[in-house]
Amino acid sequence: MRRLLRIEESDSRRSTSRNRNREQEDILVVGQPAELSLSNLAPSDAVFVTIDVRGEIEVKGNNNELIPTQTPLRLQEISSEIHLLARTFSDELRDRELELTFTDENQDFLRNERIELTAVRICLDVDADRDGIIEENNPQKAEWTWGANGHGAILLVNSDQDIDTSDRRHDTHNNYISGLVDLKDFSFMVVRKVGPRYLPSRYELTLSVNRETAGRIRIYDELDRNGYELIGPSRRTARIRDTDREILLAIEGLSYPDEDFDGLLEITLNLTDDEEIIYSDRVVFRVAPWIMTPNTLAPRTVYVSRLSDGFNEQFIEDLRKVVGLANAQLETAPFELHDDDPWMQDEMEIGYTQAPGQLMYVVLDSPRDRGLDDFPELKLLGTDFGFVTRRSRHRATKLDSFGNLEVSPPVTVNGVNYPFGRLIFGGTRSEIFEDSRRMLRVLRDFFYAQKIQAPIEIFSDWLSVGHIDEFMTFVSAPTPKGFKLLLANTGKCYEILHRLRNEGHGELFLREGKRFSRGAADISISEVLDDEKLAADNGRFQEHINWNREVLKRELGLGEEDIIDIPGLFEDDGYGRAETFFPNMVNMIVLNEHLGIPKPFGPKINGDCQFEAYVRGVLEPLGLVCHFIDDWDPYFRGRGEIHCGTNARRQPFSQKWWEVEAIV
Amino acid sequence: MRRLLRIEESDSRRSTSRNRNREQEDILVVGQPAELSLSNLAPSDAVFVTIDVRGEIEVKGNNNELIPTQTPLRLQEISSEIHLLARTFSDELRDRELELTFTDENQDFLRNERIELTAVRICLDVDADRDGIIEENNPQKAEWTWGANGHGAILLVNSDQDIDTSDRRHDTHNNYISGLVDLKDFSFMVVRKVGPRYLPSRYELTLSVNRETAGRIRIYDELDRNGYELIGPSRRTARIRDTDREILLAIEGLSYPDEDFDGLLEITLNLTDDEEIIYSDRVVFRVAPWIMTPNTLAPRTVYVSRLSDGFNEQFIEDLRKVVGLANAQLETAPFELHDDDPWMQDEMEIGYTQAPGQLMYVVLDSPRDRGLDDFPELKLLGTDFGFVTRRSRHRATKLDSFGNLEVSPPVTVNGVNYPFGRLIFGGTRSEIFEDSRRMLRVLRDFFYAQKIQAPIEIFSDWLSVGHIDEFMTFVSAPTPKGFKLLLANTGKCYEILHRLRNEGHGELFLREGKRFSRGAADISISEVLDDEKLAADNGRFQEHINWNREVLKRELGLGEEDIIDIPGLFEDDGYGRAETFFPNMVNMIVLNEHLGIPKPFGPKINGDCQFEAYVRGVLEPLGLVCHFIDDWDPYFRGRGEIHCGTNARRQPFSQKWWEVEAIV
Repeated sequence: MRRLLRIEESDSRRSTSRNRNREQEDILVVGQPAELSLSNLAPSDAVFVTIDVRGEIEVKGNNNELIPTQTPLRLQEISSEIHLLARTFSDELRDRELELTFTDENQDFLRNERIELTAVRICLDVDADRDGIIEENNPQKAEWTWGANGHGAILLVNSDQDIDTSDRRHDTHNNYISGLVDLKDFSFMVVRKVGPRYLPSRYELTLSVNRETAGRIRIYDELDRNGYELIGPSRRTARIRDTDREILLAIEGLSYPDEDFDGLLEITLNLTDDEEIIYSDRVVFRVAPWIMTPNTLAPRTVYVSRLSDGFNEQFIEDLRKVVGLANAQLETAPFELHDDDPWMQDEMEIGYTQAPGQLMYVVLDSPRDRGLDDFPELKLLGTDFGFVTRRSRHRATKLDSFGNLEVSPPVTVNGVNYPFGRLIFGGTRSEIFEDSRRMLRVLRDFFYAQKIQAPIEIFSDWLSVGHIDEFMTFVSAPTPKGFKLLLANTGKCYEILHRLRNEGHGELFLREGKRFSRGAADISISEVLDDEKLAADNGRFQEHINWNREVLKRELGLGEEDIIDIPGLFEDDGYGRAETFFPNMVNMIVLNEHLGIPKPFGPKINGDCQFEAYVRGVLEPLGLVCHFIDDWDPYFRGRGEIHCGTNARRQPFSQKWWEVEAIV
Repeated sequence: MRRLLRIEESDSRRSTSRNRNREQEDILVVGQPAELSLSNLAPSDAVFVTIDVRGEIEVKGNNNELIPTQTPLRLQEISSEIHLLARTFSDELRDRELELTFTDENQDFLRNERIELTAVRICLDVDADRDGIIEENNPQKAEWTWGANGHGAILLVNSDQDIDTSDRRHDTHNNYISGLVDLKDFSFMVVRKVGPRYLPSRYELTLSVNRETAGRIRIYDELDRNGYELIGPSRRTARIRDTDREILLAIEGLSYPDEDFDGLLEITLNLTDDEEIIYSDRVVFRVAPWIMTPNTLAPRTVYVSRLSDGFNEQFIEDLRKVVGLANAQLETAPFELHDDDPWMQDEMEIGYTQAPGQLMYVVLDSPRDRGLDDFPELKLLGTDFGFVTRRSRHRATKLDSFGNLEVSPPVTVNGVNYPFGRLIFGGTRSEIFEDSRRMLRVLRDFFYAQKIQAPIEIFSDWLSVGHIDEFMTFVSAPTPKGFKLLLANTGKCYEILHRLRNEGHGELFLREGKRFSRGAADISISEVLDDEKLAADNGRFQEHINWNREVLKRELGLGEEDIIDIPGLFEDDGYGRAETFFPNMVNMIVLNEHLGIPKPFGPKINGDCQFEAYVRGVLEPLGLVCHFIDDWDPYFRGRGEIHCGTNARRQPFSQKWWEVEAIV
């Protein structure tokens, strides 16, 4: 910003009656050179100027060269502009002075100009180096860069609810600070003004943001306990109160990054002189993104609906033991929070958001609106548990449930590092279905806008329910990559059944002793193998899985050795889409090394389920422990499985998102 | 903690009328085994026991072996104590049960015992891994270790003043939270209680500390906006309110480590059953120490008294220019804050204290009580600027002024690393003076108790004023150690004077044109050199400096190459102690590479002061810039110099004190 001293502009207006000796007054901002045009000031017959200063002021020319003072200088030989720089603030008004004496060729006096000066220091400070502590005038505070040595401040979206209210408001709805806990979700800025306690009344300090930023933040002058926002959606500019103390401002974010918001926010502190801005100090914040947690992160809490009439009571107790072994806790939702909606996975995705020294779990509420709709807001939303959702004019389909949303463990793909993994959600392939379904645009836009977990859209529309968790999951593994991708595989299932029939077990039953509402579910191996339509349908479904397999290999940088096939079988739902034929083992809950797997009720030899035996055989060598849990009645018969019926809050990544070196 | 289930203790009291079938109730704490003695419960003729459980409970023997359930076990063949472990909490009261059925040799029924159980999870959480975020049940939260991988929480002493009051109270004086800014100085704890919303009324959660800890902290349940302390000097135990939310507690320290306080504080969350503690969860905090900043850290603000009648006005302007070049700011104290006391260095030492994500400058106010006494409390104390002092029954001497307190840059001594340098203060050598002086014990104890900057007591009592800054300072240097120790050297001064006389300059004056109140101060080189008493005295004083030189070399791990001699001259004050003879150059202010050095008024050749020339010659090759400032009237004549008359707030160390690997 180029700063001109006032003397120029007000030449005639402010000159005294005796034009040959003028006294004026202005302000210097510490560290900010102010410019003065000698040629404009010099009388036409002036040949020499003598510059004199009082107090700590440097006088420099256009090339930053020091200009000598107290000696006549030939005007032609020095810059026509001179620059005044104060490095320290005034402790009294007018403790500096610039005096210019113009003389003619004979060094006879022509005119004298005096400007009394006061130096002030103005600073808007933030935690630009991301250690949780506000620095003093960090030179990099006005730009935002990624990486362990990056800089630029960070802001949380204050989407939790720190006061226990009966309604569903969260803190972004309030235009006041909800008590002391709420303040922990804020970032802070410090306004430092040093110099004389009071400046002449024509000078003011103001804080300002542009219109877009105003809608996405609230700023409070927090000493003002009962105060409302200083800056916010309805107020872009505010005056900073007079004090000789530093002023601590609290700032909260209102919106996550999205299609129309890259997450960056700029805030400016201005010094104005009769409403004209004469100096600005600027800081930049980035709003912290919403981050998902993959299966490889330790679970903290597992959520499940407690259905009425004890419908899933045994399931809950079976699940609880697995959860306990994983050192996590089980929380059951009572009827009034789910209305017998068992699909805990579909209602929400629990992620988190983080700033230096601040961590907030955040539930993304699906636009799916079934019995569990209130659960995220009524049960999860609370202190340090935020809430975010996206609404659309369009109706949600089954693909908008979050069984259709997962995230991979950290991967490196063709040299590109994704330390937070990649978000994966299911969509369609338009060439396949006329009535194709895709996730709502508002959700997709939100996912891409978070940036950290570069999303991959795969193909789930071939499934009746349309969720990617019906054919894929991730488990930890002691391999260089640290995980394996598990994929449902119908061929693997047929392979086992063929082997069993060849070994003389063709009469063994699948789904033995289980019932559908239409009757017994038992079906022999031979009946299954002899069903040519079933085989053809599964061949078709397997092609869809294979298509996804190739996409995932490419987008996650996986080889065949990173994938394990889990036997599964589907049948046509009558509309060309797939439904599971027996409890679908890949649709499991992964809790550290403990896997809660739908009990497949496969053919038994010596009491040993051959599907379970196969899965144990491929997973146990990885150090995993398979817990097969009967989910037939409460989940499988409702077209879901354990993963669909549960949800997990997991430990956040230990790496900080802002330390990611490059964002794709 | 060994936990016994209640059934034992209440055998007779609570048994039902029909003794053969009893039902009781108790609580299990998640993760905490509860013990039950089978031998106490078994009827005398019992031979077998059948153990049955409902819900998520593991039954283990004394060697942690799982004990089979639902099958008769021969009592002689299993542990006489069994241990019940729940890994998950109950979401309903009495959702678990243990049933013991005792039978005789013929497996005929003898007695049945049933205990209905409720599992609760109780947790007191802190930021034990020091990232500013409270973890969930960090297994290392109950012990405190040093180092980059150390653990244990950290607490600030809330010694600043976040509300602008007209008095001098700082926040440790308040037993309430002084608004939202104040909360930034607190650490936090979370009480998590999960399980049924209400436990039977005989169970309570309480927080407790021991008597010593109670006097050193205040804990607030911060949702209670108007609330007073939960725990504090007058309250060692408090009940935790009932809620199904997490409770955030705010905790502030009241005292720095000292002789009677190693800085460690233990806080316990108890679950009580009829006031008997049945489970405790414990956390440990360490109070952050007070840390001094050496000359090698960048200055932020320099403080100086603005004396009346413009007595040091020119000095202030000269100093301001040096301060500006060092990118620091100068703050002048007005008369009402110093009453013409010029010795800003002596009144206080500005250090800081730090916790993860928290930084507070803290001024240590000297027990010296002269005109500047109020300056630290009235001017510095404020938001994020704390205050601490030490009072003594004994009268302060000049050695208790903080010109007598310095800190070295970081050093390694015999393989021991002192990344925060070593604190240095002056004392006496008892064999030398009858009226020997030493720093007050309360100060020395305070210094040693901070631990981080392992103090060294050297010898300053040989000086009339008794301050180490009269003979030593540190400057940055481009050497492996990063600094040089400057020491006053009378021999070096004589050497220069002898050389000048030998070169025919014996008639040149020292202190030329300067005056004392007793008259002109001019004295010729020859007069100085011919003064045998002066020479003898300086020889004696030099021995004291040499003694300190050896101590500093040993205690800071320095070689001769790390020391630069600065010419200086002393004279006897009439009581055997030293006073400076001309402005004492070593008594300088060090501001990055810019040195504000007392102008020595040494003999001039061609206008060039030979003392200045010598000092430039030894310091400028290190990249240092010498600014010789006339401090004769306002400071030298008052028996002090620039360092004595100024003080600096410096940038804190970038390293965190808790990351120090070992404390000596």
